Amino acid sequence: MALLMEHQFKQLPADKQVETRSFLESVSYLPPFFDCLGSTVFAPIKADIVGNITTIKAVFDSNPSRFKTLQKILEAEKELHGADWPKVGATLALMWLKRGLRFIQVLLQSLVDGEKDENNPDLIRVNCTKAYELALKKYHGWLVQKLFKAAVFAAPYKADFLKALSKGRNVKEEDCLDKIRQFLVNFTAANDAVYEMYTKMNAELDYTV
Amino acid sequence: MALLMEHQFKQLPADKQVETRSFLESVSYLPPFFDCLGSTVFAPIKADIVGNITTIKAVFDSNPSRFKTLQKILEAEKELHGADWPKVGATLALMWLKRGLRFIQVLLQSLVDGEKDENNPDLIRVNCTKAYELALKKYHGWLVQKLFKAAVFAAPYKADFLKALSKGRNVKEEDCLDKIRQFLVNFTAANDAVYEMYTKMNAELDYTV
Ligand SMILES: CCCCCCCCCCCCC/C=C/[C@@H](O)[C@H](CO[C@@H]1O[C@H](CO)[C@H](O)[C@H](OS(=O)(=O)O)[C@H]1O)NC(=O)CCCCCCCCCCC
Ligand SMILES: CCCCCCCCCCCCC/C=C/[C@@H](O)[C@H](CO[C@@H]1O[C@H](CO)[C@H](O)[C@H](OS(=O)(=O)O)[C@H]1O)NC(=O)CCCCCCCCCCC
Repeated sequence: MALLMEHQFKQLPADKQVETRSFLESVSYLPPFFDCLGSTVFAPIKADIVGNITTIKAVFDSNPSRFKTLQKILEAEKELHGADWPKVGATLALMWLKRGLRFIQVLLQSLVDGEKDENNPDLIRVNCTKAYELALKKYHGWLVQKLFKAAVFAAPYKADFLKALSKGRNVKEEDCLDKIRQFLVNFTAANDAVYEMYTKMNAELDYTV
Repeated sequence: MALLMEHQFKQLPADKQVETRSFLESVSYLPPFFDCLGSTVFAPIKADIVGNITTIKAVFDSNPSRFKTLQKILEAEKELHGADWPKVGATLALMWLKRGLRFIQVLLQSLVDGEKDENNPDLIRVNCTKAYELALKKYHGWLVQKLFKAAVFAAPYKADFLKALSKGRNVKEEDCLDKIRQFLVNFTAANDAVYEMYTKMNAELDYTV
């Protein structure tokens, strides 16, 4: 079985337009990421992200040629939904999905950069917390923040997490980190482009759940 | 719109066999119960229970005459699945579903019995905690127990909860409690019968999640 991180995102074209089909194809490999965290408490998070992907895919499938890029979807929905936009449809789903992707991205980046808690070098809690603070905290009310604080204790040891990302194969840690580094290049670029698009189109909301 | 609690469970027959069709029909009105708790953090709980109901319904629909009662399902699955049983199929789904139902039952019973925290008489935290301890705590590891402790802070005021159960209609609190009392009779009897069946058939497991 392939490494979870072996499903590369496509390189961004010069115009930074993200193609919907290949984006959906690449993100569809990511929900198992949350299984790698090991505990059943992450199942609702995985479900939330699968829900986002399903919503976007349904819109895309309704007219693949019209919705060739993610931006075309936002433009069409803006036109269609008027005052309800952007808290609606695939625009809303992608708004949240990109935050989950950023969580994954920052967590992996922090790991390959070797950031660690010197007192607990085998744990990934500091990396999870950093990712949470940069990607999600601001969109969560105090209760969900509290739940996160409790849930982070269920995060696995670094070695077990890296092994799970390698689908249990006995890959050397350094090889696994190399794969992740490689994966992060296009993944980060694609997600950055999505963030930029939300800013440019004024599609970002900052309500909390 | 009708009160959530107006969908009575059928009275148990003398042989205490629970008919699958009417049981499924009655429980299908219960997931919105978790919306009455008000916060989006209860969505994964609702999803878990909807999942249980879907699993049982799929088995029932595969052969409604064969699976006329819940006991027939357990018997057939025991036969079919051998050593995997009872941690499998509708047997597993109903094992968890009955715990969620008991949570609802104890919470409502505690409310109609007027149990309250004298220092916070408008809150339902003590009632939720009692229900949790009797129905679920034992099946949850320390982490999920910790998550529960955090989540209970999101429980609504008693008045708002009762109003939500009445689907927002302005029913007098005493009238709403009367409805609940009435609802609890057959509901409690049906769920007790399910518990008894699990004991008798040796189908109960006590692993934790
Ligand atoms: C029995 C006792 C226990 C009780 C305890 C129950 C507690 C349950 C709490 C569960 C929280 C699960 C996380 C999900 C949170 C979600 O509420 C948010 C907003 O979710 C969005 O909401 C929108 C509407 O506002 C649309 O419905 C979106 O859907 S739409 O497709 O319809 O448009 C949907 O994604 N998503 C998020 O915050 C995204 C979460 C990404 C998470 C990333 C990783 C964090 C990892 C942590 C690792 C250490
Ligand atoms: C971004 C940061 C945030 C991160 C935080 C994420 C935390 C998320 C934690 C979510 C916990 C949700 C509760 C669900 C727990 C479930 O794990 C358990 C067992 O669930 C069962 O598992 C079986 C396999 O073992 C089968 O899959 C069953 O499924 S099967 O159908 O396939 O057979 C399934 O129901 N159900 C339960 O414990 C039942 C729960 C009933 C709850 C009753 C009410 C409690 C209300 C509390 C009110 C104050």
